[in-house]
Amino acid sequence: MTTSPQVTVLGLGNMGRALAKAFLAHGHPTTVWNRSPEKGAEVVAAGATRAATVADAVRTADLVVVCVVDYKVARQLLEPAAAALRGRTVVNLTADSPGAARDLAAWAAEHGIDYLDGSIMTPTITIDTPDAVLIYSGPAGLYQRHAPTLAALGGRQHHLGADPGRAAAFDVALLDLFWTAVSGLTHAFALAKAEGVDGADLAPFATSIAGLLASSVDELAERVDHDRHDADVATLETVAAGLAHVIEAADRRGLDTSVQRAAHAQMRRVIDAGHGADDVSRLSAALLPGG
Amino acid sequence: MTTSPQVTVLGLGNMGRALAKAFLAHGHPTTVWNRSPEKGAEVVAAGATRAATVADAVRTADLVVVCVVDYKVARQLLEPAAAALRGRTVVNLTADSPGAARDLAAWAAEHGIDYLDGSIMTPTITIDTPDAVLIYSGPAGLYQRHAPTLAALGGRQHHLGADPGRAAAFDVALLDLFWTAVSGLTHAFALAKAEGVDGADLAPFATSIAGLLASSVDELAERVDHDRHDADVATLETVAAGLAHVIEAADRRGLDTSVQRAAHAQMRRVIDAGHGADDVSRLSAALLPGG
Ligand SMILES: NC(=O)c1ccc[n+]([C@@H]2O[C@H](COP(=O)([O-])OP(=O)(O)OC[C@H]3O[C@@H](n4cnc5c(N)ncnc54)[C@H](OP(=O)(O)O)[C@@H]3O)[C@@H](O)[C@H]2O)c1
Ligand SMILES: NC(=O)c1ccc[n+]([C@@H]2O[C@H](COP(=O)([O-])OP(=O)(O)OC[C@H]3O[C@@H](n4cnc5c(N)ncnc54)[C@H](OP(=O)(O)O)[C@@H]3O)[C@@H](O)[C@H]2O)c1
Repeated sequence: MTTSPQVTVLGLGNMGRALAKAFLAHGHPTTVWNRSPEKGAEVVAAGATRAATVADAVRTADLVVVCVVDYKVARQLLEPAAAALRGRTVVNLTADSPGAARDLAAWAAEHGIDYLDGSIMTPTITIDTPDAVLIYSGPAGLYQRHAPTLAALGGRQHHLGADPGRAAAFDVALLDLFWTAVSGLTHAFALAKAEGVDGADLAPFATSIAGLLASSVDELAERVDHDRHDADVATLETVAAGLAHVIEAADRRGLDTSVQRAAHAQMRRVIDAGHGADDVSRLSAALLPGG
Repeated sequence: MTTSPQVTVLGLGNMGRALAKAFLAHGHPTTVWNRSPEKGAEVVAAGATRAATVADAVRTADLVVVCVVDYKVARQLLEPAAAALRGRTVVNLTADSPGAARDLAAWAAEHGIDYLDGSIMTPTITIDTPDAVLIYSGPAGLYQRHAPTLAALGGRQHHLGADPGRAAAFDVALLDLFWTAVSGLTHAFALAKAEGVDGADLAPFATSIAGLLASSVDELAERVDHDRHDADVATLETVAAGLAHVIEAADRRGLDTSVQRAAHAQMRRVIDAGHGADDVSRLSAALLPGG
């Protein structure tokens, strides 16, 4: 009979509690710690052991999972427990920037702590279901060793490479895409409403347009990777004209157009630099410093 | 034997030529006019009749299709031909704002011209294929009368209602969604590249995220229509924090973050108005004047 690896979860916010419950559900002896102890009640009732300090929590762990608000806090929790963590593995599932992930990985290396960085791409309700998407980066062998334990979190899990900042890089890029797109989506429904169009009437068309966005991703990626920006459908000049119509229509209705204006001004800067006849993919290149 | 309705196409830019070719391919006697006559060569070779003036072009038309750069130009072309247009039907497939569409409809009514407004939602290559999407607004009976002729343009065609501005309202709202989202998409690929992530590696994840956007549309529509903004997954406060991470990561790499900053500032204004614990759908309501 094999014994199930022991897991410690540091941080019992909405996501941390979901993670702890998933490890428990898959038979892992699970120790938990949270700054505000009352949030542990639910997972202790489900079988978790509560520790009084981070150092106590990690002492017998095969895998230490961190999920708090940001890396500053993650580091504050880990630093006083550095000695107890030596020789153990930390998987940091807190979302932050690639630079912060690389800094924490460097700190862990200095203290003889094995470190994987990760990002959870889907909401708490997906944890321990097939819908969860988690991404990891750091040493491949370390990931392989802990993948059977991490499998408790469900869904599709991907190791993206050795650079500890890589998972966070994917995470910020995808957050960028999602929340900028949601900003456009919420504005589109506001503009439609201002023109007397109900959400339910616009919805099927908006779903198709979002589908068009999805189906344009591979071509954009290919253009960006090969720095190829000749237009075959719409030029930046055409797109800027389209956005100008949007701004004009929204202004007429007294809507906030700050996001659309910023997008239009950004396009105009790229057009003014001589790229008006290029595909919108030119933006990706032009946004980079020196681009 | 029934005779095929005669069609006139005014404007032979990229889209106008595609429209004229589709009408010809479906057996409609087709007359064309364009400011720069050389653009007519291709469609004349395909069987179209070239007219010297707009008035000449429309004189025997059962249906006059206009597709030029904007409504200012559309009106400039139609005004001198008002007498020749009396009693005929104009379908204006030029993209512009709902207000401009309503103004042109009012002008047409004054001159005894039947008027439908329309928008083409898909690129030229889709015309006369199942992928074309066209939307129309104006009198329902008028649309029904000409729908068999317009069927030559292919794909799915929708009549959205009697308000002549309604097709343009859908069009601007959907352009708003698409180009703001594309701005986020191109920025995401730039940010990934700055962190050493190739487009091809990010692409499958970006496609999933765009799919997530598509699958969030119906819920947003329902929230907007019922003015219901209680959060069940992410609060505006959480989303703003996510965008702040994006901005920080992009700043560190020297990327232009003007669009993300505008989106963040817009969210902050809505949070500061007391809506931080609401769903992002609150943005749609708050963006409306008095919202
Ligand atoms: N929720 C989701 O659906 C979701 C999805 C994907 C990724 N994530 C990521 O998962 C991470 C955690 O999110 P969450 O939803 O669990 O957030 P949350 O519910 O707000 O929980 C925040 C956690 O951070 C702790 N914390 C904050 N400041 C602290 C401090 N100064 N010292 C010690 N602990 C501190 C909190 O402890 P207290 O209980 O003592 O306040 C709590 O455990 C974030 O990086 C988030 O981006 C979340
Ligand atoms: N292309 C697409 O894939 C697509 C997709 C959906 C919707 N649309 C919409 O279709 C419309 C036409 O687009 P397009 O791609 O055909 O544009 P385009 O290739 O740039 O053609 C513009 C047309 O407008 C005419 N024009 C411009 N200024 C004029 C003036 N002052 N007087 C007379 N004619 C003038 C041009 O005539 P000249 O040839 O003499 O310059 C040409 O016929 C636009 O509203 C666009 O938004 C296009």
